[in-house]
Amino acid sequence: MVAKHDGILAQDVMTGGEGPRPDGAAPRLVGIVGLGLIGGSLARRLVGRGVAVIAWNHRPHPYETAERDGIRCVETLADLVTAAPDVIVLCNPLKAMPAILGELKPLLAAAPGITLTDVGSVKGMVRDQVEAAGLGECYVGAHPMAGNELSGWEAADPHLYDDALWAITVTPGTDYRRFLTVARLIVEGVGDRVIVLDDETHDRAAALISHMPHVVATAMINTLVADPDRNIAAALAAGSWRDMTRVALTDPDRTRAMVEEDAENVERLLRDMAARLLDAADLLRDGRARSEAVRGHARGGMLAFFTEGQSFRDYKARGRAPATPAPAHDTREFSYGIDDWRELLLASARRGEHVVAFTGEHAVRVEMRSAV
Amino acid sequence: MVAKHDGILAQDVMTGGEGPRPDGAAPRLVGIVGLGLIGGSLARRLVGRGVAVIAWNHRPHPYETAERDGIRCVETLADLVTAAPDVIVLCNPLKAMPAILGELKPLLAAAPGITLTDVGSVKGMVRDQVEAAGLGECYVGAHPMAGNELSGWEAADPHLYDDALWAITVTPGTDYRRFLTVARLIVEGVGDRVIVLDDETHDRAAALISHMPHVVATAMINTLVADPDRNIAAALAAGSWRDMTRVALTDPDRTRAMVEEDAENVERLLRDMAARLLDAADLLRDGRARSEAVRGHARGGMLAFFTEGQSFRDYKARGRAPATPAPAHDTREFSYGIDDWRELLLASARRGEHVVAFTGEHAVRVEMRSAV
Repeated sequence: MVAKHDGILAQDVMTGGEGPRPDGAAPRLVGIVGLGLIGGSLARRLVGRGVAVIAWNHRPHPYETAERDGIRCVETLADLVTAAPDVIVLCNPLKAMPAILGELKPLLAAAPGITLTDVGSVKGMVRDQVEAAGLGECYVGAHPMAGNELSGWEAADPHLYDDALWAITVTPGTDYRRFLTVARLIVEGVGDRVIVLDDETHDRAAALISHMPHVVATAMINTLVADPDRNIAAALAAGSWRDMTRVALTDPDRTRAMVEEDAENVERLLRDMAARLLDAADLLRDGRARSEAVRGHARGGMLAFFTEGQSFRDYKARGRAPATPAPAHDTREFSYGIDDWRELLLASARRGEHVVAFTGEHAVRVEMRSAV
Repeated sequence: MVAKHDGILAQDVMTGGEGPRPDGAAPRLVGIVGLGLIGGSLARRLVGRGVAVIAWNHRPHPYETAERDGIRCVETLADLVTAAPDVIVLCNPLKAMPAILGELKPLLAAAPGITLTDVGSVKGMVRDQVEAAGLGECYVGAHPMAGNELSGWEAADPHLYDDALWAITVTPGTDYRRFLTVARLIVEGVGDRVIVLDDETHDRAAALISHMPHVVATAMINTLVADPDRNIAAALAAGSWRDMTRVALTDPDRTRAMVEEDAENVERLLRDMAARLLDAADLLRDGRARSEAVRGHARGGMLAFFTEGQSFRDYKARGRAPATPAPAHDTREFSYGIDDWRELLLASARRGEHVVAFTGEHAVRVEMRSAV
């Protein structure tokens, strides 16, 4: 992978600052805004793999050690744009996004060749902000499934991106060459996998596996606190309670903001979960009914309730968490045209395939990684 | 603790098999039925702390290594009863309970001095079975908060009980001396803490911190599997999803049996959780309302939802999980009479206090351990 990556770098020609690179090649120079855990780890990862990085941070405190790591640090966003990176990756906190986009707007208007991407965990909202700043044309969304409980440059670690998956989000208006530049930055530059989604599909899936569960965990600790025997319950609490309420212990203001940013999806999923819990409660009631017919029906319903998710149990039992490389027979290649690339790549993601290589200008190799 | 325990052993007189020990002293000889993870660990723990153990297992395969550890193994339950232990601890699987109780019934009728206890995780159901076998008079319920994902004698480890908490369950008919024998077995023999509950309080708390969460986790994986974009959701799943669904991956038949054994409590808690999730969904809907008044009300409601469980967050943040020893000012002693011992010890458990020593025939030392 690294050898191939070096080959691509060697054959590249200099085009920065003059429009999208004609071949959608992997970037030679990457600009990073924000040297926190995610941006700092990305900068160190890219430099370690031979990709030049230029970085700006809202405070210069990481600059001394970052420069020692081979990351070129600049004092202003104007300096960053002037250096003409192929891609600028916004790794700043979401709350700083409007101010940074406002500052980048005139700078990027004069440098149309630079592609803009980000690492935010809610894609629809970031795109709205990017479009409000008039930068929608040069933007491709991205979200790495990487992170830990730490934060800041001091915690930056290139291994954070070991065998990680990134979601790339596109719209019908996304320029294919800009998409390819970001995708190859991730696949060849970072050495990771990608799936291609639209913003809505990304945010719905994120609501399902993260935002809704945060609300459920919060409701669980609220249930305990409201119980007159809460001290007895806390005394008896063991592993299952600890695991299911861990995310409710994180900063509740941050959780609330995350949930409110994805409000429609979370609302729908909470109503769905409530209906499932009420169905299970009805079955437990009917299981104590006088009528043998009602009890028999409840028995069948409980069996179905506990069987319904079996394919997810099987998926986990296969040990085929996304971090596990797929066997050869689960790997395939396909090509697409300039008109159907979005649809074909989204359909591939829906099958549980992850892109591991670009084998041509309009062709990918994918591995079956997350088929439940 | 060990020195004191040894002292108690030294001053004890032999009374086994002739009625409850007059002083409710810690047992000298403990009979254990079932040398699996829980029973085997208990047997090894007791022998290691100088308490004699006699054991029976439904298959003799652990006997060779158990005897080498100093555990006397016998071929029949009749041999176990004939040895006249002060206490018999039922550590067999719940499904074997009716058969074992049936076999013990005539044996214990001829040995009324033996106190019967168990380690089952649902107390009301076990007591019903014990009473159905006519053994209610000699029974005191117990449930150690100990265990791991392993099972069987091979996994038995005396450290399983390091600083563990046991719930002891009693009724208005429980003989105080039998209670004291079981409690001192745990506090002095095993070296653990106890809280004293009635069966219903135990089973309601267990439903809150274990049985209901198992259903919620199951509903979550059912939600994922039902989603057309489940493969994308599985690809994006990270720590919060993994932790919140872990318990849904365990044997669904065992989970179903556990939930059905505690059906009324689980039903009530599921309806309570569903109401909380629907309230949160309504707030997310109202947060997008046209009316500023409605949106303002929703903002307040969301803040309250995410603040409600703060005392549990604070409890965890204090690091005062039950395993942490309490500071001296959170330790106190109190005495009780022969008529109010149940009420006073239950009230103590409700305050979050755990019994760490019996300081007299009707007096305990408690530590504040689980006050949320």
